Amino acid sequence: MDLKEKIISTRDNIFDGRIFHVKVHDIELPDGKRSKREIVEHHGGVGVIAVTPERDVLMVTQYRIAADEMMLEIPAGKLEKGENPYDAGMRELEEETGYTTDKLEFLGEYYATPGYCTEKLSIYLAADLKYKGQHLDPGEFLNVTKIPLDKLYEMVMQNEIRDCKTAIAILKAKAILG
Amino acid sequence: MDLKEKIISTRDNIFDGRIFHVKVHDIELPDGKRSKREIVEHHGGVGVIAVTPERDVLMVTQYRIAADEMMLEIPAGKLEKGENPYDAGMRELEEETGYTTDKLEFLGEYYATPGYCTEKLSIYLAADLKYKGQHLDPGEFLNVTKIPLDKLYEMVMQNEIRDCKTAIAILKAKAILG
Repeated sequence: MDLKEKIISTRDNIFDGRIFHVKVHDIELPDGKRSKREIVEHHGGVGVIAVTPERDVLMVTQYRIAADEMMLEIPAGKLEKGENPYDAGMRELEEETGYTTDKLEFLGEYYATPGYCTEKLSIYLAADLKYKGQHLDPGEFLNVTKIPLDKLYEMVMQNEIRDCKTAIAILKAKAILG
Repeated sequence: MDLKEKIISTRDNIFDGRIFHVKVHDIELPDGKRSKREIVEHHGGVGVIAVTPERDVLMVTQYRIAADEMMLEIPAGKLEKGENPYDAGMRELEEETGYTTDKLEFLGEYYATPGYCTEKLSIYLAADLKYKGQHLDPGEFLNVTKIPLDKLYEMVMQNEIRDCKTAIAILKAKAILG
């Protein structure tokens, strides 16, 4: 059976925000019945795990209002519409940590929550870091700390990392770097 | 500096859907300036990586309209309001795969995309599986396949797994089970 859902009509004027848009599709299911699908449209994000020659990882701590808590994450940000994730990764790394690199290694592109959200997150690994100076976006407040990769790996295994992209980045960086 | 953002007022009648709600906060930033935060409210989700004694993993393939593609994922679902993630994991495993287990091992609770979405995903590991019979929700169409854990691990490392919770579950199950 073809499992694809067919869009019959779309209500797309529901919410047109700065970060995301909301629309609702009327769809036909594989068995011919009708249903609705609520969609959050987002241009996508990027995260960079940056590891120093001493195997320290540059981590950011910031208040996340959706979680109502301070969260420990890899440097990350959202793409502008049509922006290349690689270029966005280079930009976010420099803006948030003050470090630059010549090359990012691709660690995959992931749907954050594919049931209802179009956001794809690209994750990269950066080494060969050079310090240039942090310059945050207006309205962006965060602290940068260096944490050993092996310590972060233990934190993931102890369920102490609370952000999806950060957990994936740490587990893959540990598998690659040993 | 205290990095917490203070909510001044909230517009919460923007979208009240079956899957998520949308609201916008007017906030005060740590430096006293004002800004807005757009929020998707979601009751949370659960995913279960179920591994047979032969080290095969029960995977589901389903069409995801937000991604417009067939996606390979661990069995998963959303929580009802106030539902316990552990109970929801037991339910989703049985509904989607037809298998049950006596015990789930907790692999962590993760924000899918904490910049704007309240969704927390709990991930569990299930072993000691018993087959009872699949019974999907109305409007739910998916295929269940068994894929060796080592093959799935290779797929994650080759950037071929496209869903955040699924990548985390595979990487952690491989680290635990060896």
